Amino acid sequence: MRIVVDAMGSDGQPEPDVAGGVAAAREFGDEIILVGDEGQIERQLAQHDVSGLKVRVQHASEAISMTDKPSEASRQKKDSSMHVGLNLVRDGEGDAFVSAGNTGAILAVAMLHTLRRIRGIKRPALGVMFPIAGHPMLIDNGANADVRPEQLLQFAQMGSLYVERVRGVQRPRVALISNGEEEGKGNALIQESVVLLAQSGLNYVGNVEPKEFVRGETDVGVTDGFTGNIIMKTAEAIAATMSDLIRQELTASPISALGGLLAKPAFERVRRRLNPDEVGGAPLLGVNGVVIIAHGRSNAYAIKQAVGQARLAVQHDVVAAIRDGVAAG
Amino acid sequence: MRIVVDAMGSDGQPEPDVAGGVAAAREFGDEIILVGDEGQIERQLAQHDVSGLKVRVQHASEAISMTDKPSEASRQKKDSSMHVGLNLVRDGEGDAFVSAGNTGAILAVAMLHTLRRIRGIKRPALGVMFPIAGHPMLIDNGANADVRPEQLLQFAQMGSLYVERVRGVQRPRVALISNGEEEGKGNALIQESVVLLAQSGLNYVGNVEPKEFVRGETDVGVTDGFTGNIIMKTAEAIAATMSDLIRQELTASPISALGGLLAKPAFERVRRRLNPDEVGGAPLLGVNGVVIIAHGRSNAYAIKQAVGQARLAVQHDVVAAIRDGVAAG
Repeated sequence: MRIVVDAMGSDGQPEPDVAGGVAAAREFGDEIILVGDEGQIERQLAQHDVSGLKVRVQHASEAISMTDKPSEASRQKKDSSMHVGLNLVRDGEGDAFVSAGNTGAILAVAMLHTLRRIRGIKRPALGVMFPIAGHPMLIDNGANADVRPEQLLQFAQMGSLYVERVRGVQRPRVALISNGEEEGKGNALIQESVVLLAQSGLNYVGNVEPKEFVRGETDVGVTDGFTGNIIMKTAEAIAATMSDLIRQELTASPISALGGLLAKPAFERVRRRLNPDEVGGAPLLGVNGVVIIAHGRSNAYAIKQAVGQARLAVQHDVVAAIRDGVAAG
Repeated sequence: MRIVVDAMGSDGQPEPDVAGGVAAAREFGDEIILVGDEGQIERQLAQHDVSGLKVRVQHASEAISMTDKPSEASRQKKDSSMHVGLNLVRDGEGDAFVSAGNTGAILAVAMLHTLRRIRGIKRPALGVMFPIAGHPMLIDNGANADVRPEQLLQFAQMGSLYVERVRGVQRPRVALISNGEEEGKGNALIQESVVLLAQSGLNYVGNVEPKEFVRGETDVGVTDGFTGNIIMKTAEAIAATMSDLIRQELTASPISALGGLLAKPAFERVRRRLNPDEVGGAPLLGVNGVVIIAHGRSNAYAIKQAVGQARLAVQHDVVAAIRDGVAAG
């Protein structure tokens, strides 16, 4: 397998991106194609022992940064690492593309300029594995701010298929995320989508509130990209705020500071259980190729995990499954 | 001042509702009118020393429960404690109504059957003080699942006015909650509302992500009721999940359990700082009277705090201010 890794993606690029790619080559034995500025990548590679590993470099003269405007950058920087990397996948020279770069730009480059969407798929969607018990998928997480019910239905179908294939969950439970489980709750979009989901043949278990989603009472939580992104960002904000408050209060007295010290391994385990790096990036579903988007703050471990996610998506032939099972239906 | 308290509201009614009303009468010296089943209320009152307090009972033969459907119950149970209590306010026999009951039912009874909306207000909205540093207001928090930009503008105006009057914040910072601060982010509703907010004369500081809202970078966060409710419920779910995980991991080894014991006062302070009871209930803005909705899980303290919030809204004549400043404008 050949996995293309965007070396110019993460906030700390190219260091974690290259290190993660090398770690993936070592762990999985696959060929890793690092895309980006050749000189910078080679300098990073010099820090690693890559003997025996299948790592190669593909030069790209431009890079899209986190502060670039997605629509402009995707049109103007035609030789960006994203364009070059995604074209390798389009042309069959790579099996998947992994990037920790500007999400909006990856979406734009993949959907509008390189891979393009699978015929019959109305809108590709970003499916994030939520870093809590069971890692339910939240789809869409920001590719589409405004959607119609038929699009939500496809998100549900693609999410269900991914979870079934890649995670091996039989007939994944699918739910719409709403502000209440009762009939009549939800906005107009939810109320219209309920009908489509109920007739979809999916294992639709109704609507769930964020509480039930977080408890893992569904395998796939379906939502528009605006709401999905707000959920993700609220969750991150609250987790960070609680951590800060606990740290503040623990240092407020010597006794609680001692308590905090003794409990440190426990806190470390909590942190690890909520660590988004574990889940290995979010698949962009509905385009003609495997694309996995990792967090901008990714370290090498997170990049390696994202490559792991990409491998699974390739192995289980998710793109063909969506082409045959969703787009054709 | 005469504050009407729904004795049949909370999950544990009538005990916390009556106890909270009595505590408010004692702390504030106001007249508290407890509305609900006379026999049940009297039995609860017998547990308290109410000598010297201005507490009286107003019988209501029905009660709307948490599982009642708001639209049906508000039409059918015309002698519910909500109807009776809100009519006291409508008729000038009470200055404010406080309830920890079924939020949807309070909205329906207030807006459609008793107080009704202020002329010129398109949609009343629920403004929740978010239990984090600075207690920014999130408006709307569930009264309106689908809204138009002109409605969001009024939510912003009502929220700003409330925070300015009741909390004494000069020219409160007002922001739209979005999935990104950059221009072009947000769904269609947000993008159309930006124009209205910018021309509103409010202290509009742009769009904020949940992260900035939680950090207190705005005084009023404006959103549709669906998204607002999802934010609130996600925040509650993540806080609860983290607490559970920490508890689990602390008990996983004797040393971290000892650490947890020593750090207990620190955790207690964190819990208190994030306690929604402190903020004292959410005002329903845009109806002809002061209505404060407390959490269904309210204890007596939370009910008392909600009465405190109601007193402030009455003292600062928020209803007249909305009538003159928002509806007339």
